[in-house]
Amino acid sequence: MRYLAEPHHDGSALYVSDQRPALGSRVTLWLRAPLAAGVTGVHVRVVHDGEPRYAEASVDDSRRAAGGYGGTDVWWRAEITAVNPVTPYRFLLHTGSGQAYWLTGAGLAAHDLTDAGDFRLVCHQPPPSWMPDAIVYQIFPDRFERSGPPLTDAPDAPDAPDVPGLPDWALPRDWDRDPVIPSGPGTSRQFYGGDLDGIGRRLDHIQSLGADTVYLTPIFPARSNHRYNASTFERVDPLLGGDEALHRLSGALHGRGMRLLGDITTNHCGDTHEWFTAAVSDVNAPERDMFYFDPETGDYESWWGFKSLPKLNWGSPLVRAGMKAVLTKWLGPFDGWRVDVANMTGRRGGDDHAHEAAALLRAELGPEAAFIAEHNHDATRDLDRDGWHGTMNYGGFTRPVWSWLRGPDLDLEHFLGVPGGVPARDGAATLAAFRSFGSQMSWRSLVHSWQLLDSHDSPRIRTVTGSRERHLLALGLQATLPGTPMVFAGSEFGLTGVNGEHSRTPMPWNRPHDQDLKTLAGYRELLGLRRAEPALRHGGLRWLHADADCLVFARETYEESIVVCARRAPGAPLALGTHATGLYGAPDGDVIPGEGPSLGVWRVTR
Amino acid sequence: MRYLAEPHHDGSALYVSDQRPALGSRVTLWLRAPLAAGVTGVHVRVVHDGEPRYAEASVDDSRRAAGGYGGTDVWWRAEITAVNPVTPYRFLLHTGSGQAYWLTGAGLAAHDLTDAGDFRLVCHQPPPSWMPDAIVYQIFPDRFERSGPPLTDAPDAPDAPDVPGLPDWALPRDWDRDPVIPSGPGTSRQFYGGDLDGIGRRLDHIQSLGADTVYLTPIFPARSNHRYNASTFERVDPLLGGDEALHRLSGALHGRGMRLLGDITTNHCGDTHEWFTAAVSDVNAPERDMFYFDPETGDYESWWGFKSLPKLNWGSPLVRAGMKAVLTKWLGPFDGWRVDVANMTGRRGGDDHAHEAAALLRAELGPEAAFIAEHNHDATRDLDRDGWHGTMNYGGFTRPVWSWLRGPDLDLEHFLGVPGGVPARDGAATLAAFRSFGSQMSWRSLVHSWQLLDSHDSPRIRTVTGSRERHLLALGLQATLPGTPMVFAGSEFGLTGVNGEHSRTPMPWNRPHDQDLKTLAGYRELLGLRRAEPALRHGGLRWLHADADCLVFARETYEESIVVCARRAPGAPLALGTHATGLYGAPDGDVIPGEGPSLGVWRVTR
Repeated sequence: MRYLAEPHHDGSALYVSDQRPALGSRVTLWLRAPLAAGVTGVHVRVVHDGEPRYAEASVDDSRRAAGGYGGTDVWWRAEITAVNPVTPYRFLLHTGSGQAYWLTGAGLAAHDLTDAGDFRLVCHQPPPSWMPDAIVYQIFPDRFERSGPPLTDAPDAPDAPDVPGLPDWALPRDWDRDPVIPSGPGTSRQFYGGDLDGIGRRLDHIQSLGADTVYLTPIFPARSNHRYNASTFERVDPLLGGDEALHRLSGALHGRGMRLLGDITTNHCGDTHEWFTAAVSDVNAPERDMFYFDPETGDYESWWGFKSLPKLNWGSPLVRAGMKAVLTKWLGPFDGWRVDVANMTGRRGGDDHAHEAAALLRAELGPEAAFIAEHNHDATRDLDRDGWHGTMNYGGFTRPVWSWLRGPDLDLEHFLGVPGGVPARDGAATLAAFRSFGSQMSWRSLVHSWQLLDSHDSPRIRTVTGSRERHLLALGLQATLPGTPMVFAGSEFGLTGVNGEHSRTPMPWNRPHDQDLKTLAGYRELLGLRRAEPALRHGGLRWLHADADCLVFARETYEESIVVCARRAPGAPLALGTHATGLYGAPDGDVIPGEGPSLGVWRVTR
Repeated sequence: MRYLAEPHHDGSALYVSDQRPALGSRVTLWLRAPLAAGVTGVHVRVVHDGEPRYAEASVDDSRRAAGGYGGTDVWWRAEITAVNPVTPYRFLLHTGSGQAYWLTGAGLAAHDLTDAGDFRLVCHQPPPSWMPDAIVYQIFPDRFERSGPPLTDAPDAPDAPDVPGLPDWALPRDWDRDPVIPSGPGTSRQFYGGDLDGIGRRLDHIQSLGADTVYLTPIFPARSNHRYNASTFERVDPLLGGDEALHRLSGALHGRGMRLLGDITTNHCGDTHEWFTAAVSDVNAPERDMFYFDPETGDYESWWGFKSLPKLNWGSPLVRAGMKAVLTKWLGPFDGWRVDVANMTGRRGGDDHAHEAAALLRAELGPEAAFIAEHNHDATRDLDRDGWHGTMNYGGFTRPVWSWLRGPDLDLEHFLGVPGGVPARDGAATLAAFRSFGSQMSWRSLVHSWQLLDSHDSPRIRTVTGSRERHLLALGLQATLPGTPMVFAGSEFGLTGVNGEHSRTPMPWNRPHDQDLKTLAGYRELLGLRRAEPALRHGGLRWLHADADCLVFARETYEESIVVCARRAPGAPLALGTHATGLYGAPDGDVIPGEGPSLGVWRVTR
């Protein structure tokens, strides 16, 4: 296999002794080098206060055969100090031939290169300890489940609460009979009536997938079904059941040892929000400074020019205080937040308060709340700044997976916003994309970022892949690569959708023909595998092979290696080089079979 | 030639209509694509306030044959807005085959990648307009020339001023007879007695090289020959002639239309500096907060642990005010500053005031002063922040050139601080290194950075290359690539040196056997070529070919292309594909000859 001879390091516990180092602490690093790499000496370069220092590494024989896979590798060990909140480091490898190589998160290089891909030791306040084990299930409340109508498979459903009358903006739709309007007039007004108590009736289903964390898109009152244009952050929309329903749902989840995350718009609010109505009603109102009003015209800055979404000015102390109060108010029912349009929050023209805003909110939330940034293109420069714990990793996960596993007949107008549709790319390009993004954030940020195949803002993975086989292959990558899987409700049934609106299909609880039960079984099995195997959640990541149609990697702890092979098409069998135990889709043995599309998972122990 | 079929863009005036855009202004971008690349459509992606937007480009037939070289290229044109102080952009290229490519400063990619290499439109206050034309000549005052002794070739030398007596720390050395002590005791105390009026006697020599800017290492009083441990920033060392001598030298340079730059330690001062002596003499002195004293032990932070260099605390308002006053006090004689240890300035443990310090000093200096950062490894993340105009580009220029052109018998202990000596690398690795650094700063920062072959802190380029041929080849790259050439005084005579101290040889004015006049002629010719050819100072940079022993590139304006071929060894001739006029080392014709080592320069006009 092509990459087997590459020396390796990553930020996982197998290679870094302290996953939560304090500023100033000493940390042990290990690097493994296959014998064939001919490494004769290793230095670690650490940047202290802006200046590189070099520490010599020595061979650590006690580590031989750690990780199970690669028992003849030589392990090198060095001690470094976490001098700065983010301390960058890389390795310098000397070889018998006289050639010197850099090893950074971007891989091995035989030339000089910038620090952008350096490994990073991060001393910021660590994220909550439950986060790296989480599997997140995303719910768009209007489309998940209603508390009103009886459930055919839930005779013990609670009594339906009183549901308020339909608001004037809403266009009532029938859950199972009316298809969603995918674009144009009515998209944000179509109303199916899902609510929070409805969600509470489906916790068995969510838990059966292996998910332990529910993330709700906005639940504050607003004049739309998506509720990203909140009219207040002070109470839960009565249409969803109000504050009490949120407490009931949260209580039920917490009772199961599960968690609940909210969705907050820190970039903007709705034009019916009390902050904004105060600001427009009086040019001398203190709230005026919370927004960007043009003093000449009275016009105001808004998200992408949508006047219903006035942009918040993070230069304003009122915005800072207001947002801090909102985010902490809902801790209790919520265990943290996903932040909408995090990438734009605090940024406008000459202003850039983005890192400051993220850090002050994170600090206000304290050590037990999760804090995840929506970022559609490249969050790497916004992470590792004591703000967001991670990002929704569209750039470093969703796009590479889509372009490797897209169906042959896919015809989308754009690629998550990039014009020209979803490009078809090979395995090497996919690996290059994973590495480009993965190397420019810390291991901690990678592990805490959400790896998603789709969301309420995107086409469904089933539509992108065009087949159950490729869909489950994509899921296999999501279940086995580092990062927190985030499943958009409905994809476990194989639902389809060509854009975000179209993907917000009401759940097919009562539409058996819309339920692909083989896909559902695949979700339960593959996410269950992730739950069962610590190496899939906490192990390092070593790439073993990449060709056009096949990616092979190992997830490794000190005790074992789990080898994963994803094939999008048949190919030549590959020698594993050691006996391995099949865990999924593959028999025990020492060969990776050539059949495809296929996902195979094996365990190799010490 | 290998890269000829690659679409191209860079930040030069050929591709970006406004080199000094104001915030909010519209700017036209051009991209050129050879017909063979099969580009059928182009979008430019611009990140506005943190979010990508796409603008469609159209073919601009009026541009055909711009740049001279590649007259069949298709030119695409798009308009974008400079929304933020630094507005990143990249191109999306669609091809007939359905494949989509990104074009960033790092080149063409058939996979998704982070924004690290995106092109950047910079709206910060532009650097002084003379800077991109500058050729800098670095002088270490103790070793350049004395005003005292008569000059054999300057019968009209001014009267020798009174020279104060030798200070107690100094170890007097004879200019021509005593070799420099390269390491160990005495290195910082050996005293040769060069001074500022001495420099004034050699301006014809400096100007004959094509240099127009003199950069002096520190001139403030200190207890060492290097003077990086200043005892005050308030006056010029009397050993160098005092304030009056500085004004005389500056006046003489300005009279010739030349410029003078100083060297300031913003990271530290000397332990005999008045700020520090006040701080140590009284724990209640206001100056105490200017340094990092341990409240328990009274010990203090210093540069690399050298107690003679106490580190300044940029959290202190006194440091900020004091440094602002010092830097502006000397504007007049000085036209700007080179900043020592800029990479560490303001950084210590949890403190990072580096960008803030650079920006506040830059603003204080105003629009007419140059401001260049010493940075030994990777300045890219510290540039484009309205602070330093550029860096001493050891990482992105010196190291790549050294490792491509190092002599076969070179035996240095480290590679500008990197353990293991100077690695031998091929042309492809050299290009990869140039691109890694060049793509992660703006074109503006690249052009204003100093491209140096050596300095007072490094071995001499002659020692590194081991031969006049390779030395002049290195000089050829320095004279023709983007960035401001900085010549360390003495290298034009072919002086040698195995480390910084050893390289500080007194100039061989009176040692004819130490003057390699062929090397001197090469400096005059190649730097003269740069002075004569606007394309070498302001043109874009397009790589045309790279193999192990040969690098070919074009520097291009709207009117012409200058093609440069650097060969470190003989190789196959290369077709130029068009008739070109030889400018250096090569005849007119349409072929790049195969002889080597060689440097060839040609002009191609429209």
